[in-house]
Amino acid sequence: MSRTRVFLIGAGFIADIHAESYHRFVPDAEVVGVYSRHEERSRAFAAKHKIAQWSVNLDETLGREDYDVADICLPNHLHARATIAAASAGKHVILEKPLCLTLEEADAMIAACAANERKLMYAEELCFAPKYERVRQLVREGALGSIYYLRQCEKHSGPHSDWFYDLDQSGGGALMDMGCHGFAWFRWMLPDKKPLSVFAHMQRGLIHGARTRCEENSVAVVEFEGGTVGIVENSWAKLGGMEDRVEVCGTGGVVYADLFMGNSALTYSEKGYGYAMEKAGSTQGWTFTNFEEAFNQGYPQELQHFIACVRNGTPPVTTGEDGRAVLELLNAAYHSARTQQKISLPFRPKVSRPIDLWLGPSE
Amino acid sequence: MSRTRVFLIGAGFIADIHAESYHRFVPDAEVVGVYSRHEERSRAFAAKHKIAQWSVNLDETLGREDYDVADICLPNHLHARATIAAASAGKHVILEKPLCLTLEEADAMIAACAANERKLMYAEELCFAPKYERVRQLVREGALGSIYYLRQCEKHSGPHSDWFYDLDQSGGGALMDMGCHGFAWFRWMLPDKKPLSVFAHMQRGLIHGARTRCEENSVAVVEFEGGTVGIVENSWAKLGGMEDRVEVCGTGGVVYADLFMGNSALTYSEKGYGYAMEKAGSTQGWTFTNFEEAFNQGYPQELQHFIACVRNGTPPVTTGEDGRAVLELLNAAYHSARTQQKISLPFRPKVSRPIDLWLGPSE
Amino acid sequence: MSRTRVFLIGAGFIADIHAESYHRFVPDAEVVGVYSRHEERSRAFAAKHKIAQWSVNLDETLGREDYDVADICLPNHLHARATIAAASAGKHVILEKPLCLTLEEADAMIAACAANERKLMYAEELCFAPKYERVRQLVREGALGSIYYLRQCEKHSGPHSDWFYDLDQSGGGALMDMGCHGFAWFRWMLPDKKPLSVFAHMQRGLIHGARTRCEENSVAVVEFEGGTVGIVENSWAKLGGMEDRVEVCGTGGVVYADLFMGNSALTYSEKGYGYAMEKAGSTQGWTFTNFEEAFNQGYPQELQHFIACVRNGTPPVTTGEDGRAVLELLNAAYHSARTQQKISLPFRPKVSRPIDLWLGPSE
Amino acid sequence: MSRTRVFLIGAGFIADIHAESYHRFVPDAEVVGVYSRHEERSRAFAAKHKIAQWSVNLDETLGREDYDVADICLPNHLHARATIAAASAGKHVILEKPLCLTLEEADAMIAACAANERKLMYAEELCFAPKYERVRQLVREGALGSIYYLRQCEKHSGPHSDWFYDLDQSGGGALMDMGCHGFAWFRWMLPDKKPLSVFAHMQRGLIHGARTRCEENSVAVVEFEGGTVGIVENSWAKLGGMEDRVEVCGTGGVVYADLFMGNSALTYSEKGYGYAMEKAGSTQGWTFTNFEEAFNQGYPQELQHFIACVRNGTPPVTTGEDGRAVLELLNAAYHSARTQQKISLPFRPKVSRPIDLWLGPSE
Repeated sequence: MSRTRVFLIGAGFIADIHAESYHRFVPDAEVVGVYSRHEERSRAFAAKHKIAQWSVNLDETLGREDYDVADICLPNHLHARATIAAASAGKHVILEKPLCLTLEEADAMIAACAANERKLMYAEELCFAPKYERVRQLVREGALGSIYYLRQCEKHSGPHSDWFYDLDQSGGGALMDMGCHGFAWFRWMLPDKKPLSVFAHMQRGLIHGARTRCEENSVAVVEFEGGTVGIVENSWAKLGGMEDRVEVCGTGGVVYADLFMGNSALTYSEKGYGYAMEKAGSTQGWTFTNFEEAFNQGYPQELQHFIACVRNGTPPVTTGEDGRAVLELLNAAYHSARTQQKISLPFRPKVSRPIDLWLGPSE
Repeated sequence: MSRTRVFLIGAGFIADIHAESYHRFVPDAEVVGVYSRHEERSRAFAAKHKIAQWSVNLDETLGREDYDVADICLPNHLHARATIAAASAGKHVILEKPLCLTLEEADAMIAACAANERKLMYAEELCFAPKYERVRQLVREGALGSIYYLRQCEKHSGPHSDWFYDLDQSGGGALMDMGCHGFAWFRWMLPDKKPLSVFAHMQRGLIHGARTRCEENSVAVVEFEGGTVGIVENSWAKLGGMEDRVEVCGTGGVVYADLFMGNSALTYSEKGYGYAMEKAGSTQGWTFTNFEEAFNQGYPQELQHFIACVRNGTPPVTTGEDGRAVLELLNAAYHSARTQQKISLPFRPKVSRPIDLWLGPSE
Repeated sequence: MSRTRVFLIGAGFIADIHAESYHRFVPDAEVVGVYSRHEERSRAFAAKHKIAQWSVNLDETLGREDYDVADICLPNHLHARATIAAASAGKHVILEKPLCLTLEEADAMIAACAANERKLMYAEELCFAPKYERVRQLVREGALGSIYYLRQCEKHSGPHSDWFYDLDQSGGGALMDMGCHGFAWFRWMLPDKKPLSVFAHMQRGLIHGARTRCEENSVAVVEFEGGTVGIVENSWAKLGGMEDRVEVCGTGGVVYADLFMGNSALTYSEKGYGYAMEKAGSTQGWTFTNFEEAFNQGYPQELQHFIACVRNGTPPVTTGEDGRAVLELLNAAYHSARTQQKISLPFRPKVSRPIDLWLGPSE
Repeated sequence: MSRTRVFLIGAGFIADIHAESYHRFVPDAEVVGVYSRHEERSRAFAAKHKIAQWSVNLDETLGREDYDVADICLPNHLHARATIAAASAGKHVILEKPLCLTLEEADAMIAACAANERKLMYAEELCFAPKYERVRQLVREGALGSIYYLRQCEKHSGPHSDWFYDLDQSGGGALMDMGCHGFAWFRWMLPDKKPLSVFAHMQRGLIHGARTRCEENSVAVVEFEGGTVGIVENSWAKLGGMEDRVEVCGTGGVVYADLFMGNSALTYSEKGYGYAMEKAGSTQGWTFTNFEEAFNQGYPQELQHFIACVRNGTPPVTTGEDGRAVLELLNAAYHSARTQQKISLPFRPKVSRPIDLWLGPSE
């Protein structure tokens, strides 16, 4: 069987990780092209990754018939449009998180993929991170007894690309960008427990106040059936490099896992060196030196799984429905931050950007 | 100047730590007596710690005139009565946390000490734990910039003594027992920021369901002026030994500190050994071996400070007012767990036991 | 280009890791057969790993012409015979550590591969472990200045298979089994510095005295040109699971890296669970839960590299000459343990088993 | 009983720690005076620590009769002279490590104290460090089975005071300065096992080459009766702050303990702060923030013990004989570094400075 042809739709930070992951770890896939609206970036990305074609025309790219999978790594506000166009043109879709900006978009995306019998594969890499997968196995083995508490933190000092800071493109800040990981991880860890409500607290103007109106720090408390509680903490104002960790407590035990510091070598360097970890800043003095960051975060495993799903006609572990459920929780969290109350689920607000539920549409 | 005479009112787990701390680290104090309502325990405690007198009569003991400080280590429901009696009899009072069961009691205790010109010294040892004191200095030096996030966890597998599990004596479970530490630590870290509201989630029936109706796990989110957020997590259902840790994020940095695992030697023992840390359970296999637990938690430093306050006539760092403010937050947290809403401060409910605000008085 | 055909010569613990690594991470290779002298094991291994052929005849297997690479995972005393037979029959050879038992064997193996223009690929996986590779890059970037100290430890509670404990098959104990890693890692870290001498201390009869005369614990100190010192520590008597760590000090900094504990999740489980890490023993209580052990130790990366060398005709990073140099250091270490002196290199003793240099041939 | 009067002989880094330790933790002692040959330093030290008298005349100070204990914190080459003078004048002696420069001096010091019936208390604080004391208890409880391996490291980037770098005053470098800790710790951990031999490797010219001819890095391997092995590693060229750690392996388990990093809070500070730990350098970026360093290293406990010995007439845990035995091991290590052989004990060289055994007296 020939290799599955993937077109990368986007050429930013995350597309780079995808390209590298396909190249090193997904032999059944071939990246046949890359799209960026900036000609120079598109061309440079193709050259760097030895990709045959590059494009600057999104609609033309999505409408083509010479590949199998559109791997969408665009700003959030383009997710729905690109997914629907790709599915309508017969492509399977791999879509970076979060799913989209509104629940209406989510429904339309799911419907478009269903109508065209194409897979909508929601790229939640934490569900493929090997250390977190190990934690999930522990729980499924019963090593921790009955789970009553989960915590997931993802924090750093702010995204690389400008569009994250623009509400119209991102729909929200640290919670929208990274809280989606925690919420998706809860679904994966507690497949049999429905979330009942969300309470959230948000802060802005911490270190990026001049650049964005988005929340820079958020804490969300999710209540599940049976009383299990989940805490999701996110930040764009946390210095010192990426933090991604989980904590699970059950009646029979507890587990702590940390993807970045917890996998690193510990280095002291007087003069510094090239790279320590994502968003690490200076490498002089003590640093937590990471290795195989993409692998440890689950990107290659995720893409392997998605390509295998396409080739074998099997359903992906993380779907459009997961992305939609996460978006519902994000919406509820923003609404809670405004109303200062716990928001019960299901929650289906009318809003064009999730963060408007916190800030109001006027901002 | 002769030594300050201390009478220990109580002979349980915490009284033992106090006795040991006075003996080793507070040369200006002399423990002249101990009270327990159980004669055998009272006598044995006195023998163990080489204390001259032992008593089984609380009222008589509090009314005596031959000592200077009553150090009260009784179950929570006796705190008010004992404090008022001691102050009325001209004693300074050192009082284990939490202050008492109701805000009315708190007011009466503060008033009684004031009327008799006696000190009410609220024993919040975390404010004296040297690692946490170091963290506070970092913050005061500006090392972390402006603080926007704090987290304090204290978790273990449940208290030693029976009375903690009895609502009438304790007034509440894991939050009442240990959340008071986190709330007091917030006050100490953020002296200039008033708490505005509390949101809390509680769970019971986890591992002690047959023994108590108290909450066994709680998460509380406190909002401060300016948007700073504090998270307090407590558990009586967390296996593997004591956890006491803090995390502080500011616009200029972050600090993580852990009093138990974070100070320990790491041991693997096939056959096990005598003691690893508080509530550690088995010592076979891997354990986090602690040392100088009382010192690292701040007990000796706290008692040194209190005795110095008595001798020098200076005000203590942690007072009845602090204990009262903490009790208000505890009350608000229980009420939030019932109403599922954020509770604004000030909050002055009429209730005889804080946990009734969650469970209702009928339970 | 069709896939490179690999025959696994051996069906033990390490062959299992190789099979799994080829399957998951080396798409250019196809494992076409497996040999074990035990029919049942050979058949079961083939079934488990979906390998088409299984064999119980070593000579016949090595002489066949229907595959490209013999991947030799046999007991040490068979390494030379198998390598020479495979090379003579036109196979490239991947050979598990250590290279063989004597320097004469080493020379003959290298010569046989050279004469037949076949690659002799010495499987030192630590040179491919991604965390250690990261450490090496730090050093090459100059992050640590000039290196003056290295330490490598590999310790556990003793090998799985019986043959390790039999001197005739293994040639030595903990040092032979695991010291080869440390010595090879030194060569890789210090490619421009020749080792000048070795001093070693060995112990036996610790926990396996009834089973083996081999050393169960060893410490070796290697001196390099310019005074740089390297310490290699190995044990078969270290309880609590696998330890594999390095430490590098330079005039500009220091780095610490730990492959097992240092990558793990930290778990407390009352009832225990399936597997924590290699040689971990009980999983009740606190454990360091590992994930992707083979990947983190470098097995897949090593095999990918070797297969690429075969396909591209390029030289491997770790060769028979590396294995020979390591064997020379092993010999010198055993001789030092006997003579209690530092042994200068080069050192070419006449001995049939390295450990005889310590114990004498009579034992 | 009145307080025991202590005169601090020396006003450098370590005298400062002693003064602080007496003040905070040894109520039975009173520091009545301080000596430094520099008037300004002597006066300033007295003022800082509220000490009544200061002196610049060593002989006069040691000959006085108005105090009980001479606490000697002088450069190494003055230890013998000061001890003998103090003992002859009827003082008990507390003496900072190492004992002195030659075995002849050691014998004379021990004899002088014996003749005058004064205590010679050898200040090896590691034997009082609470975490290491905990480790020793574990071993004595049998938690680790039979001990076959110990390792002690003490490393930093070089001493504060100039005299350490001058061979005539110090008698040696990193090993002399800090290896004495490891050797003393071995004696304390293995009271029933005699050391049989020492092997050592030394390096100089690493980062202080322009300032000193002393060794800047050393590794020493000690063999004990029964085959137990001890490794002592020391450095003046290890950047990133103080390292002080031990590792103990037995047939029943293992323990790791770290006094500095292993007790610290973990901090990231963009702008830096006042102090992280001894020799830490910059406090910008990630640092390991220490607290109660003197307490965690055992200084107050050691001084408490010594004062109690004086008051109660009991023998100290660490004596002149301990210091002498450590000096013998230091001598053997230097000699090994020169001869490149293992040196058997007892070893009684004629040499005026230990390091001459490595460098030769001509240097």
